[in-house]
Amino acid sequence: MAVQTTASTTDSASGAPAPFGPAAALSCRECGTRYPLSPVFACLECFGPLEVAYDLPTGDPEALRARIEAGPTNIWRYAPLLPVPADVATKPNINPGWTKLVKADNLARELGITGGLHVKDDSGNPTHSFKDRVVAIALEAARTFGLTTLSCSSTGNLAGAVGAAASRAGLRSCVFIPHDLEAGKVVMAAVYGGELVGIEGSYDDVNRFCSELIGDPIGEGWGFVNVNLRPYYGEGSKTLAYEIAEQLGWRLPDNLVIPIASGSQLTKIDKGLKELIALGLVEDKPYKIYGAQAEGCSPVSAAFKAGHDVVRPVKPDTIAKSLAIGNPADGPYVLDIARRTGGAVEDVNDEQIVDAIKLLARTEGIFAETAGGVTVGVLKKLIESGQLDPAAETVVLNTGDGLKTLDAVAPTTGPTATIRPTLAAFREAGLA
Amino acid sequence: MAVQTTASTTDSASGAPAPFGPAAALSCRECGTRYPLSPVFACLECFGPLEVAYDLPTGDPEALRARIEAGPTNIWRYAPLLPVPADVATKPNINPGWTKLVKADNLARELGITGGLHVKDDSGNPTHSFKDRVVAIALEAARTFGLTTLSCSSTGNLAGAVGAAASRAGLRSCVFIPHDLEAGKVVMAAVYGGELVGIEGSYDDVNRFCSELIGDPIGEGWGFVNVNLRPYYGEGSKTLAYEIAEQLGWRLPDNLVIPIASGSQLTKIDKGLKELIALGLVEDKPYKIYGAQAEGCSPVSAAFKAGHDVVRPVKPDTIAKSLAIGNPADGPYVLDIARRTGGAVEDVNDEQIVDAIKLLARTEGIFAETAGGVTVGVLKKLIESGQLDPAAETVVLNTGDGLKTLDAVAPTTGPTATIRPTLAAFREAGLA
Repeated sequence: MAVQTTASTTDSASGAPAPFGPAAALSCRECGTRYPLSPVFACLECFGPLEVAYDLPTGDPEALRARIEAGPTNIWRYAPLLPVPADVATKPNINPGWTKLVKADNLARELGITGGLHVKDDSGNPTHSFKDRVVAIALEAARTFGLTTLSCSSTGNLAGAVGAAASRAGLRSCVFIPHDLEAGKVVMAAVYGGELVGIEGSYDDVNRFCSELIGDPIGEGWGFVNVNLRPYYGEGSKTLAYEIAEQLGWRLPDNLVIPIASGSQLTKIDKGLKELIALGLVEDKPYKIYGAQAEGCSPVSAAFKAGHDVVRPVKPDTIAKSLAIGNPADGPYVLDIARRTGGAVEDVNDEQIVDAIKLLARTEGIFAETAGGVTVGVLKKLIESGQLDPAAETVVLNTGDGLKTLDAVAPTTGPTATIRPTLAAFREAGLA
Repeated sequence: MAVQTTASTTDSASGAPAPFGPAAALSCRECGTRYPLSPVFACLECFGPLEVAYDLPTGDPEALRARIEAGPTNIWRYAPLLPVPADVATKPNINPGWTKLVKADNLARELGITGGLHVKDDSGNPTHSFKDRVVAIALEAARTFGLTTLSCSSTGNLAGAVGAAASRAGLRSCVFIPHDLEAGKVVMAAVYGGELVGIEGSYDDVNRFCSELIGDPIGEGWGFVNVNLRPYYGEGSKTLAYEIAEQLGWRLPDNLVIPIASGSQLTKIDKGLKELIALGLVEDKPYKIYGAQAEGCSPVSAAFKAGHDVVRPVKPDTIAKSLAIGNPADGPYVLDIARRTGGAVEDVNDEQIVDAIKLLARTEGIFAETAGGVTVGVLKKLIESGQLDPAAETVVLNTGDGLKTLDAVAPTTGPTATIRPTLAAFREAGLA
């Protein structure tokens, strides 16, 4: 496997951009041990997760803001803050990001929010979920490391994001899914023409098999975006924090409501917000981070409510399949962040999820996937229970697209009436 | 019905922005008779279709370009060229447009195009089709005319676009569909919470019924986006021309490949390109417009090939349902434009459509709906038949999203293999 085990943060003698931009090393989240930038993901000392450490640009925040604002309308405008080379935007990518931050006055009115409400709507990404952000950073790392196959285990959104990104970049892709996935999701995963392998077993079996592949010579040259490229992959979620702040006019909201699957997205958004403050790009002010889970897979919410520091794994049973990770790797970090910032973790049941999907569609014209029903439903519950101040300014995330989870709303969403094509029938149906 | 029958192009005495911006009147496309800006759509003299006529801004193109570039990253950056008030971006809209123009080098290589190829990918719109553009302009006209119900007949994309736009704007919506539509499309049409009425009959029956409603007192206050608001609605397609030119660096491509349903989109893109030249925003140079149809609904292609000026209606039978209009209202204008510019009209069969959807996905990571399969398939055929110069620069449109037409590719899109989760099984399947 062609692996570059060190990376300079400055331009090399050749004058080419530093391959990882401002990234300086991988750093263990638990013990702080540092490693060269390479395709590894666990600390050799303590098995803790590795994350990217930076030498971030110092100097005039105004100049940095201007540089960002002059950049492309996608995540690469934040290249100075990501583990990517300065010329990343010139390479073939599907260029996610710069999705809409929708001022949701109608929804705010229904929920009794007076301090302002925005929906960060990531269904606008190329394959219609936030996964395009994380895959884009992992893809760039794969290119730098000379990896030639992009891979992942997936039950839906991630498969499409990996397939699309690899096709455009001219890399081979090989994606692993449980063999009994819904037909629609199989089509989405297969249409980009990469290899798609059904595994006879559960999602856990798929994951275990991927770990085996990484350790085997077969896996040489393979980048599993959510395994050996995970430290880079995770950084993609920071761009949600950057975009929210920039789209608010370079300032932070009071509250953010974020879905929890593995918990990675929530922790990286917090990391991004802290970077914005450290860089002077936004004013240093308190913010509260709220995590949202489905009741049928709510191990972090349960731990939060019980006052525990550890997260007890569960067997998921919820319509919010993109959040159905029973043993969330970043669960403890999520608990830390919710408690440190004064936020909370809450959950809603399947009926509340469906109601929230419809509420968001009816008020703002945004058709969210079940994960968006979870965040909007949790926002409603947080207000009703007094955990979130409606007079504060809130941003709620929708991370995916309703077209991918039609089954969730189909049983309760249909025509108002079916009539013969006559004015009399229209009147009789009480529609006039 | 509260109708404003005249509109000034300059600010009124009150200082409010002119409600229709630079639009001066409605003008008959056939006989040129002019009418005040109102919710009418057919000429009283000759029954010809009405379109919006402008007093477009004169003066320094550089200043106009700068004004546009400083605007929002959606269609409202072109407000100075649209029948909307200057403050339109401040009103609740779903804000479509500024979708990606993807440099498609992989696809170009496969097709043998050496002059450069771009895909204008309108699946990035809020409800994932170009219909959001046209509905946005119709919605603004409805607001100005004091209409309170937004309506349409639809078999899919338009229903979602109208529902979403009306919800966000706080208008009532009432959408009419054939009662036997696919379940998924019904969900998309219903989820935004407006009224959805199934009509026992064909799409033609739905249309006829809508015309009856407009003429009845029941229809007072109703804006049917594709009937009595059609002149405004159609203008939304001009923004595709503006965006393509601006995203190319304020210049025109040599060739454009555009799908044909009613033909309105193609004619309005041509109108937009001519405006850009007239305004000095781009250099005046020749361009060729190619129309793309599905073989199972190819009345314009048939007329083009036969050298006819009239289009003989057909009964559609194709998987490209969003293009399945058997009697395209703007067919004769499409023929004029294809012939005047030196382009052509071509068609592809269902198998070629599916192959083209997969080709685009495999090369560029873009999952198009069947209409995108039609344009990419036609592009391939035009090159193979020598009708389109591969050494010239081409832009091909994808107007919708593959997630909405999964059935088209499902039968031929699936896993490479299904295996037990062992390395031996992986090797045996020939995947290593």
